[in-house]
Amino acid sequence: MTAYENKLETIARDIQPLDPIWLAKARERTAQLLMPTRALGRLHDISEQICAIQKTLQPSLDRKAFVVMAGDHGVTAEGVSAYPQEVTGSMVRTFLAGGAGINVLAAQIQADMIVVDMGVISDLSFPELETENRLFIHKIARGTFNLAQGPAMTREQAAQSVYTGFQIATRLFEKGVHILGTGDMGIGNTTPAAAIGVVLCNSSPEAMTGRGAGVDDAGLIRKIKAVQNGLNINRPDPRDGLDVLSKVGGFEIGGIAGLVLAGAFHQRPVVIDGFISTAGALIANSLSPGVRPYLLAGHCSKEPGHGLMLKHLGLASILDLGMGLGEGAGGALAMNIIEGALRIFKNMLTFEQAGVANKE
Amino acid sequence: MTAYENKLETIARDIQPLDPIWLAKARERTAQLLMPTRALGRLHDISEQICAIQKTLQPSLDRKAFVVMAGDHGVTAEGVSAYPQEVTGSMVRTFLAGGAGINVLAAQIQADMIVVDMGVISDLSFPELETENRLFIHKIARGTFNLAQGPAMTREQAAQSVYTGFQIATRLFEKGVHILGTGDMGIGNTTPAAAIGVVLCNSSPEAMTGRGAGVDDAGLIRKIKAVQNGLNINRPDPRDGLDVLSKVGGFEIGGIAGLVLAGAFHQRPVVIDGFISTAGALIANSLSPGVRPYLLAGHCSKEPGHGLMLKHLGLASILDLGMGLGEGAGGALAMNIIEGALRIFKNMLTFEQAGVANKE
Repeated sequence: MTAYENKLETIARDIQPLDPIWLAKARERTAQLLMPTRALGRLHDISEQICAIQKTLQPSLDRKAFVVMAGDHGVTAEGVSAYPQEVTGSMVRTFLAGGAGINVLAAQIQADMIVVDMGVISDLSFPELETENRLFIHKIARGTFNLAQGPAMTREQAAQSVYTGFQIATRLFEKGVHILGTGDMGIGNTTPAAAIGVVLCNSSPEAMTGRGAGVDDAGLIRKIKAVQNGLNINRPDPRDGLDVLSKVGGFEIGGIAGLVLAGAFHQRPVVIDGFISTAGALIANSLSPGVRPYLLAGHCSKEPGHGLMLKHLGLASILDLGMGLGEGAGGALAMNIIEGALRIFKNMLTFEQAGVANKE
Repeated sequence: MTAYENKLETIARDIQPLDPIWLAKARERTAQLLMPTRALGRLHDISEQICAIQKTLQPSLDRKAFVVMAGDHGVTAEGVSAYPQEVTGSMVRTFLAGGAGINVLAAQIQADMIVVDMGVISDLSFPELETENRLFIHKIARGTFNLAQGPAMTREQAAQSVYTGFQIATRLFEKGVHILGTGDMGIGNTTPAAAIGVVLCNSSPEAMTGRGAGVDDAGLIRKIKAVQNGLNINRPDPRDGLDVLSKVGGFEIGGIAGLVLAGAFHQRPVVIDGFISTAGALIANSLSPGVRPYLLAGHCSKEPGHGLMLKHLGLASILDLGMGLGEGAGGALAMNIIEGALRIFKNMLTFEQAGVANKE
């Protein structure tokens, strides 16, 4: 076993379950709030989860950050994407310039945004942004190998990509970030995400593969075939998340798995976004199912396999708006709802405080 | 025909359809934004609707306001609510003191909040708040008559309640409010809302009646019976919204119908909340189906009939979080998403601006 893999095993072993006492205390407070029993539905589940994670009845999410993991994919050679591969690098530049969807939505919730080059083909050197810790360059390699023709990466690279994500999130938490959103950029990455979904949710390429950024009918057929070929050739082991990641994954997906692991390890909530982020969460869940209680599912994507992934993880999405952008956009939008849930929990009066009669 | 009714007819006649040219222009801009085709799903529908309403590609919702309409209901005598009737007045006092759910959620989106006493039994005199235009006292009467035993109000009172809501919204729009949220408070008001839903959606008391603020099984049976009796005794005319409102409605529901009419008349978007607000929108829609394009449905409530109402109005809800509070809470939460939709529309770069290659 490699050094990275050893570290991940230690991390996975040290993840703690949610504290049932704080969960119970939080539910008790919800019951006293000035409204019919749990009248704000899912908002209560959200605030109580965060109370239990933070072990407090005064939860705070003042410091929010989004980490957008970027990487390129050899499988684009199979014609699985409607966009040319160089768009990955171009979009990273746009993230850094501030004009993409996630920039706009992160600004709305006053979240910091960090971009990580986990394996983009283009050179992405912006020394000033790197000094400001807004960009991290951790190219595991310049793009993965074509998963339809062999393993996307080595097992060592898979472990390294997860550990890299873990370290980046750890640094953010150490700096005081309360909640992390995951995001992704990588032309072609709905194909590896679908392959991971098939293996880890015990599904089929047909059910798990969608149109991603908008391939046409012929492209969809090529995608399904690429996923099928990738699984046939590589035979990933569904009981071994690192094997799945190395055979049919992507560097940014490994990075997202690391963010998810770090949230659970450091007991901080992580909001996952859509199809790619949830594939990362599936890898993390395979390394330790203990990550689940620390996760919030920002939205359910229009990608048909996403609902299957969320179901496998036992997560109910906060939003369902027919979105399919990636970048962390759905998580950022959902953060508004999470913020609302916390405000309700903290700022609403109780029946007693308001002097209002409760149920007869 | 009474003076109020005459005024409402004039208003309904003057409602204009959305401008298809601005809708087309907005869709054209969306198509240029730096993302796969309409990748943010419903967000685009929302921003384009608001562009068409405001006739601009620089839509603004900087000034938001919520109007919570309050009233009491004679039908509480049938044992249809889990809460005592005096809670209506107590809750209004809490809205004015700032400690209820809608206060917390309106603060999150920096919306003004206005409370209207449309017919609360308790005295609610707060001269200072009335001077500040935060509270309006327009008691049509002290509670409706028991709809299970006769008409809830006169036709004149029904028209007056709608016209009162119209005038309040008109004043807010004149002061520069860009978007209005509707809210309600009234112990027992899911019963008239259900009765309105049955008549105007051509549904049944069983399908339309739910547990509201949490009645038990026996209470639910009493509610269904009250709705059934109300419809049998009063025979409201489904082609006549004022007849429906007067026979089985409520003063706050009429007020909400007036807010909805005003939004369409003055060409401002109105975000409706849950079951009660949507009953108000059904009344407005019955007076003029031209109101629909100006409406946004904040959320789908856990009240089983709400989905049927939204379907009848052709509205897709923005959120679906198992909520059932009323007050405008779902609309306020949804306002965050609407705000995000506008930010995306206005602030995201186009492919051309970012210099990124579009689809191959």
